[in-house]
Amino acid sequence: MSLSFISIGLNDEKDMSLKAIEEARSCDLLYAEFYTHKINTSIEKLEKLIGKKIQLLSRKDVEESDIILTQAMKRKVGFLVGGDAFCATTHLALKFEAMKRGIETKVIHGSSIFSAVGEVGLHMYKFGTTITIPFLEKLRGKLPISAYERLKDNKDRGLHTLVLLDIIEEEKRYMSFKDAIEILLQLEELMKENIFTEYSDIIVFARAGSENSKIVFGKVKEIKDMDLGEPPFCLIIPGSLHFTEKEYLELLKNDKR
Amino acid sequence: MSLSFISIGLNDEKDMSLKAIEEARSCDLLYAEFYTHKINTSIEKLEKLIGKKIQLLSRKDVEESDIILTQAMKRKVGFLVGGDAFCATTHLALKFEAMKRGIETKVIHGSSIFSAVGEVGLHMYKFGTTITIPFLEKLRGKLPISAYERLKDNKDRGLHTLVLLDIIEEEKRYMSFKDAIEILLQLEELMKENIFTEYSDIIVFARAGSENSKIVFGKVKEIKDMDLGEPPFCLIIPGSLHFTEKEYLELLKNDKR
Repeated sequence: MSLSFISIGLNDEKDMSLKAIEEARSCDLLYAEFYTHKINTSIEKLEKLIGKKIQLLSRKDVEESDIILTQAMKRKVGFLVGGDAFCATTHLALKFEAMKRGIETKVIHGSSIFSAVGEVGLHMYKFGTTITIPFLEKLRGKLPISAYERLKDNKDRGLHTLVLLDIIEEEKRYMSFKDAIEILLQLEELMKENIFTEYSDIIVFARAGSENSKIVFGKVKEIKDMDLGEPPFCLIIPGSLHFTEKEYLELLKNDKR
Repeated sequence: MSLSFISIGLNDEKDMSLKAIEEARSCDLLYAEFYTHKINTSIEKLEKLIGKKIQLLSRKDVEESDIILTQAMKRKVGFLVGGDAFCATTHLALKFEAMKRGIETKVIHGSSIFSAVGEVGLHMYKFGTTITIPFLEKLRGKLPISAYERLKDNKDRGLHTLVLLDIIEEEKRYMSFKDAIEILLQLEELMKENIFTEYSDIIVFARAGSENSKIVFGKVKEIKDMDLGEPPFCLIIPGSLHFTEKEYLELLKNDKR
């Protein structure tokens, strides 16, 4: 019948829009996933807010089974996902499969790190490609060289880089900014292009969209040993800075919040 | 006292999150602006939803007067803005001023075209810099050459480009996709880099986040004379396509919705 991708938004169930809640309430069957985005909520909280039962699905359930599509052939199914639904390629793939089977699809958008990153004070139109730092075991210990190359490509053009950090929800593992910095420094050691060193500027954006979000700006060596609290984190590696961006970051540095 | 930037979200007042509504209700004084983002709502609808009076401000009010900051020194002020607050540089500038004056600031994020663009089926991590096509009179008739150069820079790297279209809210003017295509074709005629021609692939994303949003993919010459309804529009100019992106776009082409 139909499949609605319902974005929960950036941080918790209260980031859901009125549209998202209405759409969820109008569905016959609700699923949710927490594996593409660390979302600071629970199935119980979502069920309480929406007033319906929700079945939590693992990556395996979604990517290796037909459970969602089979149901969506017969009923109005809603799939609750963190952030904004189609920032995750895996959800696009599911929408694609649904379209191929003639299932009507719909999306309710939500807040996302892709736009929330503007809060750090850099201009949105100066961001280059976004990169993700994966846990090394996923690469069998190899370093993510393509991430470094894309960072170099952005830096060569004076562009800012949003760096997303990997999560393994099944193991409740969320990459810390320290691990990501360590991997980037190892890449620098390997590639030696002088793209990311202890003396590079970096911004850490912790817990974006939450009451206790934190933005820290400084040199890698000043920041890598800081205690910035719980995940999730993302990094922003500035390119060349417009003077208004520089002023803003300097103010941020001295902002005691 | 404090200034809260409260994102309304992508399309209308129902794109507000529960957090945004709670924050607005907790403010002593509410302002709103509609000039950075075409938002499909009205002050009356927002007032009804929030249950408080809201004062609509023009760009002049915000950028050339101290009205918001003066009030925010004394009271808890909320500023309602379309999309996600800090995707607009002008709102960052206001936050910067507030911080300089020791006014506590806060942001509630919302849905934005910067993440909603994922809906067209291209992979988020393959987008280069975003460009904006301004109304030519703002450039005294000159063409926005830098936009063309940044489009070329993205295309040379095989990256996708999100193209935002100008608005002049004071005159209720919202650039149509036809005008934007026309300006890009004029730029091509001037620069002759073979970046954007009648035979280039293009995606038009109309009314993102609304009930009647529409995504159309094809060659510029096929699309430029189509009737795609009311604004707002944005364009996406694909770079090199991953086969899954290509499959998705082909399906979209034949999708009768």
